[in-house]
Parts: sequence; C-alpha cells; structure tokens
Amino acid sequence: MIAVRALLFDVIGTVVDWRGGLIARLEAWGAARGVVADWPGFVDAWRRASPPLWAQVRTGARDWANFDELLREAAERLAPDFGLAWLDGATLDGFVRMWRELPPWPDTVVGLQRLRTKYVIASLSNCHVALLVQMAKAAELPWDAVFGADVFCTYKPDPATYSGAAALLGCGSDEVMLVASHPSDLDGAAKCGLRTCYVSRPLEYGPGRIVEELPAAGRFDLMVDDLEALAGLMGC
Amino acid sequence: MIAVRALLFDVIGTVVDWRGGLIARLEAWGAARGVVADWPGFVDAWRRASPPLWAQVRTGARDWANFDELLREAAERLAPDFGLAWLDGATLDGFVRMWRELPPWPDTVVGLQRLRTKYVIASLSNCHVALLVQMAKAAELPWDAVFGADVFCTYKPDPATYSGAAALLGCGSDEVMLVASHPSDLDGAAKCGLRTCYVSRPLEYGPGRIVEELPAAGRFDLMVDDLEALAGLMGC
Repeated sequence: MIAVRALLFDVIGTVVDWRGGLIARLEAWGAARGVVADWPGFVDAWRRASPPLWAQVRTGARDWANFDELLREAAERLAPDFGLAWLDGATLDGFVRMWRELPPWPDTVVGLQRLRTKYVIASLSNCHVALLVQMAKAAELPWDAVFGADVFCTYKPDPATYSGAAALLGCGSDEVMLVASHPSDLDGAAKCGLRTCYVSRPLEYGPGRIVEELPAAGRFDLMVDDLEALAGLMGC
Repeated sequence: MIAVRALLFDVIGTVVDWRGGLIARLEAWGAARGVVADWPGFVDAWRRASPPLWAQVRTGARDWANFDELLREAAERLAPDFGLAWLDGATLDGFVRMWRELPPWPDTVVGLQRLRTKYVIASLSNCHVALLVQMAKAAELPWDAVFGADVFCTYKPDPATYSGAAALLGCGSDEVMLVASHPSDLDGAAKCGLRTCYVSRPLEYGPGRIVEELPAAGRFDLMVDDLEALAGLMGC
C-alpha cells in the first residue's frame, strides 16, 4: 500500500451511524410532542428511498438536486405511510437537518485522526458540501478536504466522482483508496482504478440486519473491522 | 454582521507570507549549492507573472491550467533573466512545490482557530485544491472546506468563484464574507453580493513596498490589521 497518498471516505454508514442517529433524534422529537410513530420504520424507508433518487440524477432522468432536496421530497412522500401526513413543511425541513448531526461510530474520530498524520483524508459522499461541513463541525471529523456530490453534479457510483476527487487531490487514481462499507461503492471506485478498503459496519442497518452480503476475501484490497484497524494497517 | 455564516479567505498574501517564505527557501537552496542569484528579484517577478496568466484562463484565451502549471511555465520563462537558464526541469518542479510550504503570518493560525468556533471557514484561492491541502497540513490551517480555482475551472475575480463557493456552503451570497488583502479580489466578491473584509498585510510585497493603495475607509464592510483582530470583531 506504499503508493497510496490519499484516502477518500464514504460517509453515510461508513463514518457515521445514520440509523441509530436518526432514530434517536426522531424519537426524542416525538416524545417531546407526544407523537407516536414507527420511527425505525420511517428511517429505514427514508434511507431506502435515496438510491433510486440518486440514480435518477446520475442517469439524467432528472435535473441536479442535492441530498437535502431529495431527502425532503422522500420525507413528504413517505410521511402518510407512517401516519405523519399532517406534518408541516418546517417540521420536515427540521427532519432533513437531522442528517447534519449524525453521530460518528466509536472508532471514527480516533481512526481519522491517526490516518490524517500520514495521509490526506477527504470525504467522498453523496451528501453535499454544506451538509458535510456542518456534520464535520458537529462530529469533529478532521477532514483535510470535503468532497460531496455537488462538486461533481452527479452521484456515486458515477466515475466522475471517483476520478474527479483523485484529480482534485493531485493524485493518480491508483494513489487513492476509497474506504466504504458498501461493496457497490467500492466496485465503482475500483472501475476507476482506485484502491479499495471495505469496512464492516454490522450495525449499519440495525442489529442482525444484513442488506449487502459480506464481500468474499480478496474482492477488495483491504477489509477491516473499523477505522482504527485501518490506521494500524496503514502504519499510523 | 449577524447574518454572516461563513468566511472565505484569499490565501496567497492574506493567510501566508509568499514573499518571505519563498525567498527563505530559495536562499537556503542556493546556499546549499553555492548558487548566487537575486532571489528576492526572482520571487517578485514570479509573483507578478501570475495575474496575467490567470487572466488568460479566465478570459478563455487559453485552456484550463492549474497554478502549479502556470508557476512552472513562468519560472522557466523568468530563469534566464536571473542567470538561472541552466536549471533543469526537476529543480524548477521543486521550486514550484515550495509554494506548498509557505509560512502563515503570525496571527493566521490563532485567528482562524478562533473564527472557526463560530463560523464556517474556507479557503477561496487561485491555487488548486491539492496545493491548498498540502499547505494546510504543513501550516496547520484549520479549514472547514478547501476551495481552489480548479473546483470552478476559472480564476478569481470570475464571479463563478465567489458565487460558486457560497453555493457549495449552502449560503446566500450576503451570508458569506471574503477576507482578503487585495482590494481587486474584494471588489470581485462585492459585485457578487458577498460581504468584504480587507486585511492589511504591509509586509506582503516586502518592507516599505506598497503595490496596491490602502483602500479608503468605508470601501469594504470591515478593515482589520490581522485575523486575530477580525476574530475579536466577529465575537470569537
């Protein structure tokens, strides 16, 4: 791995716990107002709604829209299914803003701090820069640079995102490694010539729930249990 | 100034001392090899060569080229004027890389750290992201986000740079303030609706050398002597 100079990180699921964070915030919001709803079900449905919307933008079926706009649209569409059709627009806007306050996994901040001592570390997320900057401030993520889908006006796994981020860092594609908990994301990076590191996040979709199969050994350059393990492997 | 949410910073001259830093490095390089040359003269000529090259890209007279490429071209053109025509390409590449190691002004890091506690702080420079990231790591500049000319494929004062950076931060133009030691840069930002803060850097072009006149009182929203003074004015 000597040639790697920069590490790009998927964020939602890889770096932060979207499910645990959103459920906790929505349950607190409901409890304060006496609103009872299936918040875990809402969060899961909301997360599942994103990939098809990203694909619409990526394929050109719809104009550019950032993740806040797509989340807002999905929340409004899903609300009736969870008895929440009566929520007003400002409330849904507040739900969308909760994505800026997602908690890091326990190993995230220490792992990033260690990796940053020897490598350039940057986000490469389907979130947009404004969301990622606010998240980094709240969660103290020590990025050297913040790349979001809006820098490239398309969504992963569009090759323009992986190749574009490597170019902005002044690196050849094989000098950059994508770190992600989603095999499909890593496959997209590998097609662009990037190195790949799979991070296991067994709690991402909730205890005992597997959405993507564990990749076979050897499918990616590295496979680690968390970012501190990655820091150890990378000599940090 | 209550409405300001983000501060953008010009870098070369505003945040780092390009002249003092380059002269010190080139003198050290020459002393180690017994090469005598007018290093201050070379540095001044090199810096003066940049704005016309940026303008060629901005006006479309030439294709996109990043600051490393423009600096390399200018160094090769200027070398004969300073008795340095014999320098090889690898040496000139090394001179270009010295721009990644420019020292911050004494108030820079503390000022940015204070401002970062209440505002989003980001670079908005005619340098490119890779250079800015390396500079930030070397000088410990605590940026929340790093924007360079290559994000927009044009150079300041093109409106696309100021408006584009504000958009990436999710801010209206009047929620963003450009901080710079160059009135022409601030004028460009003001035309896009950004707030403006002039920072006096009397040593930028060398002791006693004034290249741009001190702006009249009231021309910009704020005028400060350094970034710690700005932090104080902004309540940090």
